[in-house]
Amino acid sequence: MRIMLSVAYDGTGYHGWQFQPGQKTIEGELNKVLSELCKSEIKVIGASRTDTGVHALGNLAVFDTDLMIPPEKMAYALNTRLPEDIRIQKSERVKDDFHPRKTATKKTYCYKITNREFSNPLERLYSYFTYVPLDVGAMEEAAFFLEGEHDFQSFCAAGSTAESTVRTIYDVAVKKKEDLITIEVTGNGFLYNMVRIIAGTLIEVGRGRLLPEQIADIIKAKDRRKAGPTAPACGLTLVKYEFVDKVPTMK
Amino acid sequence: MRIMLSVAYDGTGYHGWQFQPGQKTIEGELNKVLSELCKSEIKVIGASRTDTGVHALGNLAVFDTDLMIPPEKMAYALNTRLPEDIRIQKSERVKDDFHPRKTATKKTYCYKITNREFSNPLERLYSYFTYVPLDVGAMEEAAFFLEGEHDFQSFCAAGSTAESTVRTIYDVAVKKKEDLITIEVTGNGFLYNMVRIIAGTLIEVGRGRLLPEQIADIIKAKDRRKAGPTAPACGLTLVKYEFVDKVPTMK
Repeated sequence: MRIMLSVAYDGTGYHGWQFQPGQKTIEGELNKVLSELCKSEIKVIGASRTDTGVHALGNLAVFDTDLMIPPEKMAYALNTRLPEDIRIQKSERVKDDFHPRKTATKKTYCYKITNREFSNPLERLYSYFTYVPLDVGAMEEAAFFLEGEHDFQSFCAAGSTAESTVRTIYDVAVKKKEDLITIEVTGNGFLYNMVRIIAGTLIEVGRGRLLPEQIADIIKAKDRRKAGPTAPACGLTLVKYEFVDKVPTMK
Repeated sequence: MRIMLSVAYDGTGYHGWQFQPGQKTIEGELNKVLSELCKSEIKVIGASRTDTGVHALGNLAVFDTDLMIPPEKMAYALNTRLPEDIRIQKSERVKDDFHPRKTATKKTYCYKITNREFSNPLERLYSYFTYVPLDVGAMEEAAFFLEGEHDFQSFCAAGSTAESTVRTIYDVAVKKKEDLITIEVTGNGFLYNMVRIIAGTLIEVGRGRLLPEQIADIIKAKDRRKAGPTAPACGLTLVKYEFVDKVPTMK
């Protein structure tokens, strides 16, 4: 049977999601612990191959097993074996042909910025720090131009293998609470580094180096060099996946 | 002249505040970096000697120097030399006889609890995790009994050298936001492990093992064994110091 895991992790100590020989990766840790538990070689299929240093609250992974543990108990069995910076949040049975990257989903990412005079050591691992005061109102205005279906080639890092660079962004919410700014982006899919380039571009707007309405021109240009820099990985967290059609779980 | 530093740190990697030969401590790091900067041996006087693993947003320290750096620039000079898990938030000149432990202050601590089915890796270093659902309403009721001037002997760990165990708590606020419970305590001073014992006792109330009104009996008993366990250090953050009389700074 096929089991789906919802996986939360602190990406600080990992070379990203994807398995690489000799490197500590989230996928590598999951494969190792699952193979031990199931006493056969297991390779998970992940929904999002997050980069080095990116965090997640709800990435997804599936694997096949004949192990006679009730699917919903799998989370407990795995968590006792996993390092404390990876925690399964849920385990459930899905249809045998369910593939997390070939299913329509809404994905939500959150980019965090600590904006104050000096860095806050308690936020340093999970947010990008800048002492330059950011204009959150301008960032909100700029965010509006990103919403909808667009060709996001300007927001796609070199080296992407995506066939199409058209994506739909349902919502970009910029909020400030005390000295923490969050950019929450929900879309039907994201190109390579797309959320970090969106964050980097909105930061340029917040600094006054770009005007909100220039976002429309940047999208139109289909040129990566027109957008802002790629914001650092540590600020990014993959928050959740939602299924557009019916949930693929089986009872 | 005497300089006062406001110090924020992630206590995860430190054996607490107080200097100990051969151990990594906050005071030890500050003394080392200040002595390098000032080119003479500097020993800071700290306001609170936080325990191993306890965090701070605004602990205080003072030291004396003849260095010709403007006091308010000292924070920048130190931050470029300090490890990234310690960050000076402010540096300013104070009166030469100002002593941070011999001055009337209000101190605020925050204890954080992650209360959900599985631990959140992004909160694991800065909160205590329990999957047992806590009754926040009962914890709030219990908190009320702690406010005011009391003999807090029941909430003082063995080994304390305090002359009196009478302290005043101005406020205990228990709040819940999503799966994060915070206990914010403000008082004129705290006994050894007092905030962690308060947190441990309120957690017992939240679990239903103690009734809110039993807090009054626990205080009356003046017996450490009547209170709850000492909650783990990682959940505790020293938030701020406020001066009761006039601020001791000099321009």
